[in-house]
Amino acid sequence: MRLKAIISYDGTYFSGFQIQPKGRTVQGVLESKLAKMHKGKPIRIVASGRTDQGVHAVGQVIHFDSPLQIPEGNWKKALNTMLPDDILVKEVQQVSPDFHARFDVETKEYRYFILQDEEMNLFQRHYEYFVREALDLEAMQQACQYLMGTHDFTSFCAANTNVKGEKVRTITNASFEKTGNRLVFRIRGNGFLYNMVRILVGTLLEIGKGKRTVEDLSTILEAKDRSKAGKTAPPHGLYLWEVNYGNR
Amino acid sequence: MRLKAIISYDGTYFSGFQIQPKGRTVQGVLESKLAKMHKGKPIRIVASGRTDQGVHAVGQVIHFDSPLQIPEGNWKKALNTMLPDDILVKEVQQVSPDFHARFDVETKEYRYFILQDEEMNLFQRHYEYFVREALDLEAMQQACQYLMGTHDFTSFCAANTNVKGEKVRTITNASFEKTGNRLVFRIRGNGFLYNMVRILVGTLLEIGKGKRTVEDLSTILEAKDRSKAGKTAPPHGLYLWEVNYGNR
Repeated sequence: MRLKAIISYDGTYFSGFQIQPKGRTVQGVLESKLAKMHKGKPIRIVASGRTDQGVHAVGQVIHFDSPLQIPEGNWKKALNTMLPDDILVKEVQQVSPDFHARFDVETKEYRYFILQDEEMNLFQRHYEYFVREALDLEAMQQACQYLMGTHDFTSFCAANTNVKGEKVRTITNASFEKTGNRLVFRIRGNGFLYNMVRILVGTLLEIGKGKRTVEDLSTILEAKDRSKAGKTAPPHGLYLWEVNYGNR
Repeated sequence: MRLKAIISYDGTYFSGFQIQPKGRTVQGVLESKLAKMHKGKPIRIVASGRTDQGVHAVGQVIHFDSPLQIPEGNWKKALNTMLPDDILVKEVQQVSPDFHARFDVETKEYRYFILQDEEMNLFQRHYEYFVREALDLEAMQQACQYLMGTHDFTSFCAANTNVKGEKVRTITNASFEKTGNRLVFRIRGNGFLYNMVRILVGTLLEIGKGKRTVEDLSTILEAKDRSKAGKTAPPHGLYLWEVNYGNR
């Protein structure tokens, strides 16, 4: 039986999503709890993609196979009872055995939260990026227009990535919205390169601070050179918000 | 030279404010950093009052004496540079040598944050109390009226308190306000007994859930008996918001 689960996690105290020999990871915690439920039998989970250390998820999607005869409606509670308080299973449903959480992704949405204020909010220090400088919201919104459509995002991919091949991605939505002193950047696309959202946000913030012009974004894209883009924004403002599988 | 400081802290990873032989405390961390600044000389701090494990502060006030010739305007930065990221010094000012952070308090304001939703917000799990049940806001607001004025709050004081003597306090403001799915309880008074705000919130929530009537609050007050009141609400929704010293 193949199960698809939507999970949320607070990335603060995880060394990222992907399991590794040392360090607490989301995958490591999930797989150890699943193994416990399966009397020690290892259960491998597959996610829509990994997230880095400190990055959060509101709607990460995973799949796994289980021989257990647990009614679909009981899985969520069974898992949440075992999991620590920084992982929450929001939904579990049985899916076709050929559903694949990574290969079947149609679009993903990320959001990046920025607090723009004179003084930092201590209670949000792990959950939004604090920026004291004034930001030109209109310039940042205009620059977002250059991201829309299909582009080679090499300039916005961490230079140390192992991923070879195609760096062309399609962005269907990129926008900034301001509510009070909180800025939210939303970006939706068919795929994202390593550190792509964080480098985009870092670059857009430099535009907002007047260090670069709106048109610079277009020039940076065309350069296909990571060194032309801005700094990588910190992980703690970033959330994997939603993964879409079309009709699946 | 006597200094008054307004500090904010995230109570999550502290065993409360007050220094103790074991456990990380706000006072312990502050005094150890102050000792470092004073080349090992112990500097004792005095707060407006202590807060319990898990309780936060937005505007706690402390005082301490220092022989250091640091200009008033440099103290804030000097302290924040040394402090961990869950304590923030918001303001430091030189005060008269007879100012006392505890004895001179005129009023204090506490706030208690409640998230009322179908599903908990993982990222707020340490910062607001999650309540799934429907709440009768109007009943809770009406019950607040019984708190206003001068009363013996014995019923709302933890039974295991060491504090003997007067349990009469004056409340000048007590109200609930709802914004979206967030409820905020604000209470201001000339003093608060041990666990008083948390027992009040626990009791008011029972009124909101229809387990008690609005008038029960008056009966409970008159009983002067802790066992008549409701459960103690958890610490993580509570914030020491502001301490007022009148003209000082």
